[in-house]
Amino acid sequence: MRIAVINPNSTQSMTDKIAATARAVCAPGVEIEAHSAKGAPISIEGHYDEAMAVPRLLDQVRAAEERRVDAIVVACFDDPGIGACREIATGPVVGLCEAAVKAASMIATSFTVVTTLPRSAPIIEELVRRYGLDHQCRRVRAAAIPVLALEEPGSNARQLVRDEILRAIEEDRCEAVVLGCAGMSDLVDWLSEETGIPVIDGVAAATKFAEALVGARLKTSKIGAYATPNAK
Amino acid sequence: MRIAVINPNSTQSMTDKIAATARAVCAPGVEIEAHSAKGAPISIEGHYDEAMAVPRLLDQVRAAEERRVDAIVVACFDDPGIGACREIATGPVVGLCEAAVKAASMIATSFTVVTTLPRSAPIIEELVRRYGLDHQCRRVRAAAIPVLALEEPGSNARQLVRDEILRAIEEDRCEAVVLGCAGMSDLVDWLSEETGIPVIDGVAAATKFAEALVGARLKTSKIGAYATPNAK
Amino acid sequence: MRIAVINPNSTQSMTDKIAATARAVCAPGVEIEAHSAKGAPISIEGHYDEAMAVPRLLDQVRAAEERRVDAIVVACFDDPGIGACREIATGPVVGLCEAAVKAASMIATSFTVVTTLPRSAPIIEELVRRYGLDHQCRRVRAAAIPVLALEEPGSNARQLVRDEILRAIEEDRCEAVVLGCAGMSDLVDWLSEETGIPVIDGVAAATKFAEALVGARLKTSKIGAYATPNAK
Amino acid sequence: MRIAVINPNSTQSMTDKIAATARAVCAPGVEIEAHSAKGAPISIEGHYDEAMAVPRLLDQVRAAEERRVDAIVVACFDDPGIGACREIATGPVVGLCEAAVKAASMIATSFTVVTTLPRSAPIIEELVRRYGLDHQCRRVRAAAIPVLALEEPGSNARQLVRDEILRAIEEDRCEAVVLGCAGMSDLVDWLSEETGIPVIDGVAAATKFAEALVGARLKTSKIGAYATPNAK
Amino acid sequence: MRIAVINPNSTQSMTDKIAATARAVCAPGVEIEAHSAKGAPISIEGHYDEAMAVPRLLDQVRAAEERRVDAIVVACFDDPGIGACREIATGPVVGLCEAAVKAASMIATSFTVVTTLPRSAPIIEELVRRYGLDHQCRRVRAAAIPVLALEEPGSNARQLVRDEILRAIEEDRCEAVVLGCAGMSDLVDWLSEETGIPVIDGVAAATKFAEALVGARLKTSKIGAYATPNAK
Amino acid sequence: MRIAVINPNSTQSMTDKIAATARAVCAPGVEIEAHSAKGAPISIEGHYDEAMAVPRLLDQVRAAEERRVDAIVVACFDDPGIGACREIATGPVVGLCEAAVKAASMIATSFTVVTTLPRSAPIIEELVRRYGLDHQCRRVRAAAIPVLALEEPGSNARQLVRDEILRAIEEDRCEAVVLGCAGMSDLVDWLSEETGIPVIDGVAAATKFAEALVGARLKTSKIGAYATPNAK
Repeated sequence: MRIAVINPNSTQSMTDKIAATARAVCAPGVEIEAHSAKGAPISIEGHYDEAMAVPRLLDQVRAAEERRVDAIVVACFDDPGIGACREIATGPVVGLCEAAVKAASMIATSFTVVTTLPRSAPIIEELVRRYGLDHQCRRVRAAAIPVLALEEPGSNARQLVRDEILRAIEEDRCEAVVLGCAGMSDLVDWLSEETGIPVIDGVAAATKFAEALVGARLKTSKIGAYATPNAK
Repeated sequence: MRIAVINPNSTQSMTDKIAATARAVCAPGVEIEAHSAKGAPISIEGHYDEAMAVPRLLDQVRAAEERRVDAIVVACFDDPGIGACREIATGPVVGLCEAAVKAASMIATSFTVVTTLPRSAPIIEELVRRYGLDHQCRRVRAAAIPVLALEEPGSNARQLVRDEILRAIEEDRCEAVVLGCAGMSDLVDWLSEETGIPVIDGVAAATKFAEALVGARLKTSKIGAYATPNAK
Repeated sequence: MRIAVINPNSTQSMTDKIAATARAVCAPGVEIEAHSAKGAPISIEGHYDEAMAVPRLLDQVRAAEERRVDAIVVACFDDPGIGACREIATGPVVGLCEAAVKAASMIATSFTVVTTLPRSAPIIEELVRRYGLDHQCRRVRAAAIPVLALEEPGSNARQLVRDEILRAIEEDRCEAVVLGCAGMSDLVDWLSEETGIPVIDGVAAATKFAEALVGARLKTSKIGAYATPNAK
Repeated sequence: MRIAVINPNSTQSMTDKIAATARAVCAPGVEIEAHSAKGAPISIEGHYDEAMAVPRLLDQVRAAEERRVDAIVVACFDDPGIGACREIATGPVVGLCEAAVKAASMIATSFTVVTTLPRSAPIIEELVRRYGLDHQCRRVRAAAIPVLALEEPGSNARQLVRDEILRAIEEDRCEAVVLGCAGMSDLVDWLSEETGIPVIDGVAAATKFAEALVGARLKTSKIGAYATPNAK
Repeated sequence: MRIAVINPNSTQSMTDKIAATARAVCAPGVEIEAHSAKGAPISIEGHYDEAMAVPRLLDQVRAAEERRVDAIVVACFDDPGIGACREIATGPVVGLCEAAVKAASMIATSFTVVTTLPRSAPIIEELVRRYGLDHQCRRVRAAAIPVLALEEPGSNARQLVRDEILRAIEEDRCEAVVLGCAGMSDLVDWLSEETGIPVIDGVAAATKFAEALVGARLKTSKIGAYATPNAK
Repeated sequence: MRIAVINPNSTQSMTDKIAATARAVCAPGVEIEAHSAKGAPISIEGHYDEAMAVPRLLDQVRAAEERRVDAIVVACFDDPGIGACREIATGPVVGLCEAAVKAASMIATSFTVVTTLPRSAPIIEELVRRYGLDHQCRRVRAAAIPVLALEEPGSNARQLVRDEILRAIEEDRCEAVVLGCAGMSDLVDWLSEETGIPVIDGVAAATKFAEALVGARLKTSKIGAYATPNAK
């Protein structure tokens, strides 16, 4: 089985980190290809960045389809362009937010999402509602750090994320925490230990759910909204 | 007051039709600029077309902002890229679906949406739910016509739309009908007469709502999700 | 175009203030008639006041219909008797809460409502839920001032409203604020300046939305719940 | 215990029928007073009739309070003026729709409401949603009979109601049926026998629930929305 | 009329307390039988205890049916096994949570539930959502006391419950409080006095609602999900 | 990795079929243990059967925990006792309905569930709503066959299921179909071919999701509702 993990931004260090996470969790015999969306913004912080990144993400999806991958992971927590990807993909396309919150809902009765920037919180709130899990989501919190601070060696970003999780446990009475940014995927083990609560990383969740859907022999439905785009 | 009405596809005849509708309804003293999204697909039929159109739509929004327009109408019923437009706009940005269903909800207790292609119906259903009006929306119906058939002189598209509205009245017990495609905006008077029910066109609704928001001196909020994109 | 703005209470100073607001925002060529609901309570503070005011409001609607106005604004934030007004009106009937929250939802992803009395908060919460916007409404707050304090020259009511808005920004993470009382309509400019956030006044929003619906040639649907009352 | 059952319309034959139903179901020692809302419309068919009836209903509630009744039943399925009644009442105030659908939800997983006129269906749909039971309500159906036809000896109204119930069982897969008009309360036994499904009459349900709330020593909360009206 | 009140746990002192409450509120002529679920856990604190208790609860329901009781109250606030009970019961089966929150929703626009253990709060939140009343429920709070502490003479459990109610009034702006444990039923009068807010006990509410449903001649629907179990 | 797949009923032929499905889809290196719930009913057709089966299911979960399995699949589409299982399990516990509908929601915008008996449909409708996916579920249909008919060699059960799926495609406009009974798991390939639509089997979905959660190193949260049961 081959899964293409596509980082919709163009920061290679983040793609490398995502690839490492995906490879660490995938089953024996699963091959992970990781790609940056060349030409996309260096980080996705809001709707505009998303919109500019999606055509470049679709370039990568198209290329992956030509290589006949079995599934695609869109490795950004805002789940940009998922519907468009599903129209041109054959196998399943899984987004980080969708996978992570659906995973959270199976191991806890409630969860809080901790993301980077305040401006991303309303986007995630809308996604969670779209996925029907607003009743299990206690709150979407922002640790107030720019996405790329997670890539800087000396930054205090990881401490800020941990502190926000500790506040979430205290104030939100949540039973699990979802990390709301792909760039946090290398922190998940440390954060789980520091906080003593299940911490869910979207990269791992999406990779495993993609694997699961392929393993269950499921493909994207082609008889409705996700049909191949009409020729122009 | 100046309103930029932007057709996110590149079919000029549709832009012209939309401009005519907007000009027919705007208040005295309001100037309508109409633009096609050059380089975008010729029609928007699904998520993929949407995704490819949005960066071209944003080009037009950016240009309109430089011309200091007061508001922007995104003239496609799938409301593509609205969040991204709002991040780079100063004044209000109004989408056709959002305006039309909110208008419908103020003149009727229930409505049905009649769109072109079946593949667009789930996209509209999701929008209606996002706008919180699923409880007033009886059904989203497709007349099973390609978007551009509405541009062809001899096509029977208008009859198909009328017949679908008549079925909606009979089967859905709806009190109003919303036209689910910008390309239907020239049919609204004829359809109202033929069916005897309020028929709501998104182009007219969005133009008037944009005008209304500007008139009420409202601008897009810049302290959260719609803040100006972070510099990259 | 002629719009009747009807204050469902009988306090003329409030009607005058509402009329001034409506006239300040209406488009060229729009004529605003403003009327108090003679015989109604002097202010609407709860369901009971509402119930007593509605028949007097309907007197004014009936009279306005005879004068063949194009639309009606019911100028109270509790949206009293809107359904009944729609049954006897030909054109659109717009309430303040409905217009204001629908306007807010188009310029911000979330909003808080700031009203006068605590007893009105649950009424507004129910309205917001009825209009399907509870997922965008952070909270309904009361500044704990009687409605008519807004009419008294020396009162500190405006300061209390401003302080409540500042608390809303801080505690609710809202992107806009809706003023939950018609009597606050003259404060909107001052409050916007003081707080730096879009502040939405229902009188302006409803007047402009009424204008918009008429401009889009929409009338109240007469084939269902808003049909003319059955003769008795 | 004394319960005032108030018919918000002025048709005495309907009040008599309602009184008979309430007396047939009340517990030993419960006294039922039945009153017509003198001066109200002869039947309530839509929002307008409701609005005109409510002040007359409130006259009766005020009088009942002076007689120190223990609870009030508002005997119209549209639940007119319930909030206003609760503000001036001390004990519980129960509406027919609220009681009937909450009763239905305890004996069946789903129900359909069968009312008289099509124009009442959207009003009931909104009430059911307000009470949070839309997920258990399969459909609101109208038998297409005027309210007062139920009072005419020779009319075929009862047959039409039965036929609509039979259609509901067949088409809606409902497990119970709620009668959506106070004027149907004398048909409940016959309809239960004819259809073999639990048929719920609002008059009986509301009377018993009023009795239940009083018996559990509950009164209307006076610390929020249902506080006594502010003096004017 | 005979109502079987069944305590799904096996603590007889709690059964006695529940029986006393039920007898104190039932109408003249109603006979209350109270039974412990012999062999069940001594208290129900979570899903596991619930699951182990339900077959023993069903033993009691089966026995009660043989004695031809008219209705059954399942006297635990988690509403365990209600669906199963309804399948083998003829008359209505009423759970404490369902009755209490539906009662609360008729005397107040909002309520808070105060239960014993934090682990029960998510269970109750899910029940409240299932019953469609999450929009009226401000919060589910836990006073952090084990269920059986309510049975111990010298414990400070009652003070903790009162303090939690006082916090609910202050912080949640609720208009009523629902006691989220059958073991609190003897505290209801004292708590009402101490807090000055309507306090709703599930045992009283469920007993009265069972009485009400029987009095309205309603039985559990047998044509769908609550049909008699298929023979095995 | 070791996954215990537990059939909560006691029919060994169904357990064998379920085991075969789970083994056919699991990743290399995953060991599937399959167990029947000895002493449970022979099939689960409704709430009562569920309630009687759960303690026997918990016996198997307890035993599996002692054998230190990594995850548990509860192989019945009604998701019986999931909360209780999660309290006594260390790793993830996955139910068929939850896994199948969450899988469906990732490959299609809408789905219909096809189950066996009409009495199970409302149970599944409630589960789907609890999981927040009612907006993507077009309908829950019953093919009107007893659960064990699926085990009988010569029965026409499979044809009835296929015909119901074909009706779902035609009437519900669904994009995928979920099989609403564990006993249908061997039909999934044949049904996919016959109907040309993604057909989702809960056994495969739950097995793969259990594998995915373990692979992502997630365990059941122990700080809230799923904490280990309190000692009695």
